[in-house]
Amino acid sequence: MTERSLLAPCRLGVAGVGTVGAGLIALLHAKPDFAPGGRRVEVAAVCARSRARDRAVDLSAFAWFDDPVALAVSPDIDVFVELIGGADGSAKAAVEAALKAGKPVVTANKALIATHGLELARLAEAQGVPLLFEAAVMGGAPAVKLVREALVGDDILSIAGILNGTCNYILSEMEATGHSFAEVLAEAQRLGYAEADPITDVGGFDAAHKITLLAALAFGGAPNLAAAEIEGIDAIELMDITLAKELGFRVKLIASAEREGGGLTGEPVRASVRVAPALVPLDHPLAQAGGALNALFVEGVRTGRLFLQGAGAGAGPTAAAVAADIADLLSAPVRPVFQAKASTLSLLDPADAGRRHAKVYIRLVVRDRPGVIASVSEALAKAEVSIDSILQHSVGATGLVPIVLTTQAASEVAIAEAVEHIAAIDAIAERPKMIRIARI
Amino acid sequence: MTERSLLAPCRLGVAGVGTVGAGLIALLHAKPDFAPGGRRVEVAAVCARSRARDRAVDLSAFAWFDDPVALAVSPDIDVFVELIGGADGSAKAAVEAALKAGKPVVTANKALIATHGLELARLAEAQGVPLLFEAAVMGGAPAVKLVREALVGDDILSIAGILNGTCNYILSEMEATGHSFAEVLAEAQRLGYAEADPITDVGGFDAAHKITLLAALAFGGAPNLAAAEIEGIDAIELMDITLAKELGFRVKLIASAEREGGGLTGEPVRASVRVAPALVPLDHPLAQAGGALNALFVEGVRTGRLFLQGAGAGAGPTAAAVAADIADLLSAPVRPVFQAKASTLSLLDPADAGRRHAKVYIRLVVRDRPGVIASVSEALAKAEVSIDSILQHSVGATGLVPIVLTTQAASEVAIAEAVEHIAAIDAIAERPKMIRIARI
Repeated sequence: MTERSLLAPCRLGVAGVGTVGAGLIALLHAKPDFAPGGRRVEVAAVCARSRARDRAVDLSAFAWFDDPVALAVSPDIDVFVELIGGADGSAKAAVEAALKAGKPVVTANKALIATHGLELARLAEAQGVPLLFEAAVMGGAPAVKLVREALVGDDILSIAGILNGTCNYILSEMEATGHSFAEVLAEAQRLGYAEADPITDVGGFDAAHKITLLAALAFGGAPNLAAAEIEGIDAIELMDITLAKELGFRVKLIASAEREGGGLTGEPVRASVRVAPALVPLDHPLAQAGGALNALFVEGVRTGRLFLQGAGAGAGPTAAAVAADIADLLSAPVRPVFQAKASTLSLLDPADAGRRHAKVYIRLVVRDRPGVIASVSEALAKAEVSIDSILQHSVGATGLVPIVLTTQAASEVAIAEAVEHIAAIDAIAERPKMIRIARI
Repeated sequence: MTERSLLAPCRLGVAGVGTVGAGLIALLHAKPDFAPGGRRVEVAAVCARSRARDRAVDLSAFAWFDDPVALAVSPDIDVFVELIGGADGSAKAAVEAALKAGKPVVTANKALIATHGLELARLAEAQGVPLLFEAAVMGGAPAVKLVREALVGDDILSIAGILNGTCNYILSEMEATGHSFAEVLAEAQRLGYAEADPITDVGGFDAAHKITLLAALAFGGAPNLAAAEIEGIDAIELMDITLAKELGFRVKLIASAEREGGGLTGEPVRASVRVAPALVPLDHPLAQAGGALNALFVEGVRTGRLFLQGAGAGAGPTAAAVAADIADLLSAPVRPVFQAKASTLSLLDPADAGRRHAKVYIRLVVRDRPGVIASVSEALAKAEVSIDSILQHSVGATGLVPIVLTTQAASEVAIAEAVEHIAAIDAIAERPKMIRIARI
């Protein structure tokens, strides 16, 4: 790129022309001069699986590549924009090829960066080209910029948020309609809000990719996806949404990263990174972020708590984030991919899960027998877990009754052991359901 | 700066060692290596009004300057950090001197940039040095970065938020304590939350400086402070806070900027920029941002509505924002100060105020005479302003009764004229109070 005059247009090669790619092409058609430095940006070439597919945008003006790797190294492009998706396969091959060819890369691919971030950062920095991924997290809301740039002078303590719009939509719809997870998922698939293969979203993996990226930037390591604990929303029952609400909570899929060590203590930074359903107080901003919204709290030692909210996906927001990265690289900053040179980085170390404490919601389905609450209380007391509240409804026609306990903060390991003991009690009709109460 | 090795520390000259300056010195003491590029940052020299004043930080290690201009041009500093404040005087002289000497400038001075932004941007760009001001708006919450960088590829339609923590604190305290504006202000001054001369804050000028900056970045012009309409909170009475709440609203000092023209219409962009008390629905995030919080909505054509919230001031947040700007300039981006080269920029044009429509709250104090509501209704009807609701309490011992009307959306000019007619009605005991209902 450096050989070209600053006034020559910046020519993009766009691999993957789905929703976001079409949004980017439309954006550049409307605003080719959006970059403040004055350099025009245009799409020069595209690559997609099918040339024939109906798209909202006309691709006939662009050179066509069948092979993303060939596009990535084409001498006719200055910047490679990867919108294929997926941690491996052609997305990875093409990004590597572009970096090796000395081309800046902009990607919306959270799976790729969460899985191969360190390796790609080393490659990018060895070649002296930027690798940017603002569009990978929270669509048009600048979560990456917030953590990487705005808080670079602070010590970040924790991050917690709603990073998957599909899950948030499904949970919101279950509450609003009283339908089951399976029913709402099927309807979301029919409307195009959920993928035909929904496991990446509803299994929590997409949110895990995103929080892994943010944790790496927040705590000064490289992304370590393998260290993330991941639980999706597929086991959330309508009953739990209803009972949680009676207790003043809403069930949300929360992606969180908490720092342990580091800073003044001199220990290496470790992080507890996880995605799991959690109960959030109804009046909390995360509980109020409904539908497909994404929302994020970041807490820093100096800055305190910042909150950012916006549409987490979609053509417009994500294309705007890609455009922001393009404007950024046109300003030619010299900056490592993560928060230190990749040659000095290692994967972010996981925290010791055994040391964590939480308050939890435990929902039991009980055959109405005398003494069961006594047995449950005893199991919790033995594990040194104190009960905060108990909610029991009257017995229905089935003879089965849900009982909900919330606990005070206790060792998560101890709680899990107590729940195993509770599960073994005779009167307990199905496996107890445990959901953490978010510490936010 | 370019002559020095990348590994030599970046030496700051810090002019103004109040709360923020002390916070910055403490931050750099704790984290001199915060910049991702690996270049150490250190304070080399400081300048403040009084050498003797007790401060939370030890200044003895730094070279001392009595004159900020002498500090700004010192060969022993690489970057000038201006924390003096004020639109003119020594802050302006020192920033100009630093830019003329080819030194990058980081400032938290909203008054300076709002008042002299175009002139200073021309100077900075002629010298090829950055002039950064993230710390000028919303403390550690990256409002400038959000509007300037994250949304650079979008078309921003409107910005609305709470940008002055002192006013927000005073309004929150009035509601919580039932004390008058004067009482709460005096207490805030005693606690150090408000300045001895509070007019910059409570008169709305500080918020106007900030929204003027954001509007320039959002709409592609240079800051035009003279075009901002400014109304403070000094005339807000407790009665209005109480009555608004009965109607489901909270009184907030809202800074807003709305685009008119531009984009697809091809007209030049104009903007309606103002600061004024407004009623916000109680369940709206801006109503829920209490105390000294700052909060901002930005709406873009593609991105939709983004929301950002955080502590808007204080040593930690503002120092973190200054540090973010230092890290940014160490990455050596080549970027104009505003959204296009200053040589091509003009002051952002104001929108035609006569075309604006709003819903308003009108509070009257009426001598309890029959027929007054009829007269008021008639005045509004003549101006083609429709009444949305009326709230009237029973008559107190004084014989005076407050009546609140809310209107449907109508021309602001027509409403103002109708209010003049209402003010002239015999039974109206004091000047009617009008507060807009926020369009958010």
